Amino acid sequence: MPTPTRRDLANAIRFLAIDAVQAANSGHPGMPMGMADIAEVLWNDYLSHNPANPGWLNRDRFVLSNGHGSMLQYALLHLAGYDLPIEELKNFRQLGSKTPGHPENFVTTGVETTTGPLGQGFANAVGFALAEKLLAQRFNRDGHEIVDHRTWVFMGDGCLMEGISHEAASLAGTWGLNKLVAFWDDNSISIDGDVAGWFTDDTPARFEAYGWNVVRGIDGHDPESIKAGIEQALACSDRPTLICCRTTIGYGSPKHAGKESSHGAPLGLEDIAACRTGLCWEHEPFHVPQDIYDAWNATGAGREREEAWNQAMAAYREAFPEQAAEFERRMRGELPADFATHADEYIAKLQAEGPKVASRKASQMAIEAYAPRLPELVGGSADLAGSNLTLWSGSKTVASTDPDANYIYFGVREFAMSAISNGLALHGGFIPYDATFLVFSDYARNAVRMSALMGARAVHVYTHDSIGLGEDGPTHQPIEHLASLRYIPHNDVWRPCDAVESAVAWKAAVERADGPSCLVFSRQNLDPQQREPGQVADIARGGYVLKDSAGEPELILIATGSEVGLAMQAAQELGDSVRVVSMPSTDVFDRQDQAYRESVLPRACRKRVAIEAGVSDFWRKYVGLDGAVIGIDRFGASAPAGDLFKHFGFTVDNVVEAARSL
Amino acid sequence: MPTPTRRDLANAIRFLAIDAVQAANSGHPGMPMGMADIAEVLWNDYLSHNPANPGWLNRDRFVLSNGHGSMLQYALLHLAGYDLPIEELKNFRQLGSKTPGHPENFVTTGVETTTGPLGQGFANAVGFALAEKLLAQRFNRDGHEIVDHRTWVFMGDGCLMEGISHEAASLAGTWGLNKLVAFWDDNSISIDGDVAGWFTDDTPARFEAYGWNVVRGIDGHDPESIKAGIEQALACSDRPTLICCRTTIGYGSPKHAGKESSHGAPLGLEDIAACRTGLCWEHEPFHVPQDIYDAWNATGAGREREEAWNQAMAAYREAFPEQAAEFERRMRGELPADFATHADEYIAKLQAEGPKVASRKASQMAIEAYAPRLPELVGGSADLAGSNLTLWSGSKTVASTDPDANYIYFGVREFAMSAISNGLALHGGFIPYDATFLVFSDYARNAVRMSALMGARAVHVYTHDSIGLGEDGPTHQPIEHLASLRYIPHNDVWRPCDAVESAVAWKAAVERADGPSCLVFSRQNLDPQQREPGQVADIARGGYVLKDSAGEPELILIATGSEVGLAMQAAQELGDSVRVVSMPSTDVFDRQDQAYRESVLPRACRKRVAIEAGVSDFWRKYVGLDGAVIGIDRFGASAPAGDLFKHFGFTVDNVVEAARSL
Repeated sequence: MPTPTRRDLANAIRFLAIDAVQAANSGHPGMPMGMADIAEVLWNDYLSHNPANPGWLNRDRFVLSNGHGSMLQYALLHLAGYDLPIEELKNFRQLGSKTPGHPENFVTTGVETTTGPLGQGFANAVGFALAEKLLAQRFNRDGHEIVDHRTWVFMGDGCLMEGISHEAASLAGTWGLNKLVAFWDDNSISIDGDVAGWFTDDTPARFEAYGWNVVRGIDGHDPESIKAGIEQALACSDRPTLICCRTTIGYGSPKHAGKESSHGAPLGLEDIAACRTGLCWEHEPFHVPQDIYDAWNATGAGREREEAWNQAMAAYREAFPEQAAEFERRMRGELPADFATHADEYIAKLQAEGPKVASRKASQMAIEAYAPRLPELVGGSADLAGSNLTLWSGSKTVASTDPDANYIYFGVREFAMSAISNGLALHGGFIPYDATFLVFSDYARNAVRMSALMGARAVHVYTHDSIGLGEDGPTHQPIEHLASLRYIPHNDVWRPCDAVESAVAWKAAVERADGPSCLVFSRQNLDPQQREPGQVADIARGGYVLKDSAGEPELILIATGSEVGLAMQAAQELGDSVRVVSMPSTDVFDRQDQAYRESVLPRACRKRVAIEAGVSDFWRKYVGLDGAVIGIDRFGASAPAGDLFKHFGFTVDNVVEAARSL
Repeated sequence: MPTPTRRDLANAIRFLAIDAVQAANSGHPGMPMGMADIAEVLWNDYLSHNPANPGWLNRDRFVLSNGHGSMLQYALLHLAGYDLPIEELKNFRQLGSKTPGHPENFVTTGVETTTGPLGQGFANAVGFALAEKLLAQRFNRDGHEIVDHRTWVFMGDGCLMEGISHEAASLAGTWGLNKLVAFWDDNSISIDGDVAGWFTDDTPARFEAYGWNVVRGIDGHDPESIKAGIEQALACSDRPTLICCRTTIGYGSPKHAGKESSHGAPLGLEDIAACRTGLCWEHEPFHVPQDIYDAWNATGAGREREEAWNQAMAAYREAFPEQAAEFERRMRGELPADFATHADEYIAKLQAEGPKVASRKASQMAIEAYAPRLPELVGGSADLAGSNLTLWSGSKTVASTDPDANYIYFGVREFAMSAISNGLALHGGFIPYDATFLVFSDYARNAVRMSALMGARAVHVYTHDSIGLGEDGPTHQPIEHLASLRYIPHNDVWRPCDAVESAVAWKAAVERADGPSCLVFSRQNLDPQQREPGQVADIARGGYVLKDSAGEPELILIATGSEVGLAMQAAQELGDSVRVVSMPSTDVFDRQDQAYRESVLPRACRKRVAIEAGVSDFWRKYVGLDGAVIGIDRFGASAPAGDLFKHFGFTVDNVVEAARSL
């Protein structure tokens, strides 16, 4: 029996994709058929991985930014020997399968990041490559290159049209991420047809303008040409590489090849039969001959690769035991053993000292307090360092070879910033943070959603959290943003009322290993609140009684952030039957047990007033139809902050009146 | 007295900006100081406008995409003779002034669009230029060039770093918008300092890759160089132009010139005094000598320009009376006289016929019904035409010279798409629509917010509105999006339950002259609902009784979109004491008078169940603490839609159980 040809190997991908999409009667065959040859060369000749241990620390990262072609990735994982049996491929896109419509890192072992929202996989990949660079410069020693892997990313025209591709490519170029290699699936087709009508960029020239190494003119169906392109990428030691691969979408389909009709629908049985004939693949659906499995199987080579690395790691551990332990701790995502104690001490000290600062300043103080013992903390701001207060005394730019590099000047690129954070978090070894004004969370919104969906520990810092921003006006004043971010499932939003709550929020974000946090801070100074130790401890529960009533409360004021001080003043006017609840995180509070929630917001007390400088309707979940909300349901205005708070009704008189009218 | 020099004229801008920022103790002097010379040349030698009539149809459009430099624009408007007296400049950034922190088109006469969120002004400008092109090819006749104006846009490094600049520039290049001229304020400084650390793009090469005419090496402080650059732009008849202007931020400040410290804070009295000396501007704050006012005053030239155009328009009206009337109708933003009648007839016909279609299909049917009599309707999809169903039988690509061009292939560029819609709406002559999957409204979110803030009649079409999208999985399934879009102030969100409600939603969106609408449609088929004529009329009130109880309701089911059918089935099980309220638009319903709202949701009935395949907490505003919500508070999953609705509890049994448990 002759050895299978490379084309045979690629066809195994094609037909697994074709047949799975047909079986599901749903999915995207065109891209796997078009990129199969590239994937085959990359995975069989270059990708450094170990199918038996998808968590091997030094594996190459492979990202399918054009995630609709998920069957390509599932076919690769299956063929290479990952734990993804053929039954899962037969169950493509069904409830509970390990083969969802788009690759999901939390469902399928071997999938590095969840893709589908176009352009973001590419930005995640920039984050992966940055992570590799930073870990290498922190931990590698002469003769001990324990961190040395590449990030490979597939992307289509759709990814390249998206704005985030500009932001991410620009940063990758600036940082010289030479271990990042992107394959452009240049097939001239997007969903609406021939891209000539809407995508006429000279993409190679564009990437050269970002400082990339661009390999032009690769035939994406010729293994030798593909290999030559990859070799040019490997030879480049100072820049990321874009390999421009001419391909035919739906390659092999007599009816749909080169057409948008192959993109997002099953080919149909008749065409599939013709594909089988044309590509000389006369096997049943989901049947892959053993010789082809054998040729694909990467478990042996993978084991050898990892074993070689394990030996190198052992030598490193021998030579640099502390660094090795630290590297492994960071890659496990474990915090330093003393983190919580240290943080609690800092919080207690803050409570005792009671500084009156803006919560954005309190955020910076928290970073300054935690970061020296938390070298995995890496991050920065979208060109608002002095406003977001993200710099601290140990900040060193990542655009350097400094082993302690930890600060990212993202430029004005909110979306790529947040997606790069996701990549850093998913790679391991880092707790990333990023920052902009709260209103511009809009620009990054789907990346925040992806943090939550993927369970990525990314800390999104948003300052200038309300009309308290003042003179910059309604374009810069968030109104709906707090509520909208809280509504993203699995996302924890914190809006602290003073320095103590700010420090607790940062601690919670750092400790939340399985999901993101949005930390929302004020521009303006906030009064410190007095608390007993039990109250300080309860901040971490998201909501707690900050000032209690004498006896059962007749009225409860609920507030967050800058409005907590107002609630406390109003409570003083309203008398001692009033309870004040500070609610820095509704997400966290809602997760508390029923008994705790009842202890804070007793069902019997329906006279409730919520106060927050944002949309009021959000608070109906706590005050119901009988309560009142002091909120803002229109756009802000340009004026000094004090004038605005008065103008929009955030006054003691107004709160008192609302409370008394219940 | 010598004629003022060009530098004197530019210095008038500089000092108005310097002094206003100092008076407000807030603002951004660096950009106006840096771009004053460019603005002076453009406004005095090239800009075709009439300060006495800022609404002159054929004026050039000027866009300040780097909107933080708002004082540049206010100074220009004031000096050129617009209705913006010096008192307003003295009141910069104060409550109620006409000089807010960022330019706001709804506050300040002469401001074309609201800017500040970086990159969006540039994309708006692409929309302006597209509007001009389309109106010109529709209405101009040989010898009658009644539409013939340019769009000029100022942009900084921040705009160029943003992803939206990529999307917008790419489309402008593809469309060959030669009347669009962008000035890049190339000052090498952004807020965090020298951009060398985070912005190393070769921007001229990048724009050439988009097919732009790029003018390199202009000295932004030398009027002759600036003029030469503009002349090169005017000479280019087939491509948009980027003029790269080297400037010094904070030009003229001994202490802050060339530094980020000039960007966003007052210079301080000492430095201002030194500026005055250095720039030979020995006038009191806010004092502009009369000879400089005279040199700036554009009212005479403006009147002449408009009068010449008025004559041309008169000749056109004479020669082409119908076209002239149509042009003027469209520019007034008035709908065709018979639009409402025609739409109502279509709606009545649909109600009678009761087609069972997906609401996305019903949307396409509505476009097909309305568009032939609504030539101002222009729009398209972000590469999802066949999914969003945005094409209709009269669609003709705008990438053509067809007089009827009306369809925009936006490519995969959601953010620029929506910002371009805003530009089209603000220009006048168009009702733009754009489309993508609901989940990807995230990518465009801040542009939707800007539609609402600016009161732009943009119609944002979002299909695949829930887990009903099915197999594509959680990356593509909106959960929080409906609620989050509704929370944007002044934004009307519609989620129709059948073809009739879809047609009403489209009618409402078209008729809503002062704001945007988000039309949210299903992927899957929806049963038609029966209605009496009064009910059909009440759809336009946002919420109405679709099925009433016998007598006062004991229980109210409230639902939207695909869940209305489920509510109707559950009501049948629950008996005739149950009312069903269809609530296609909570925004519109909330604006109805108290009596109407009470008639739909009587206060006395607290047994209420809301049903929507999205976050549940949103509905607490209607069901309070005593009601129940059938919603989704976690991410979706990849599976056929039917499986998912069951999996997530959208079953008659579940609704009935929730209702009975109240």
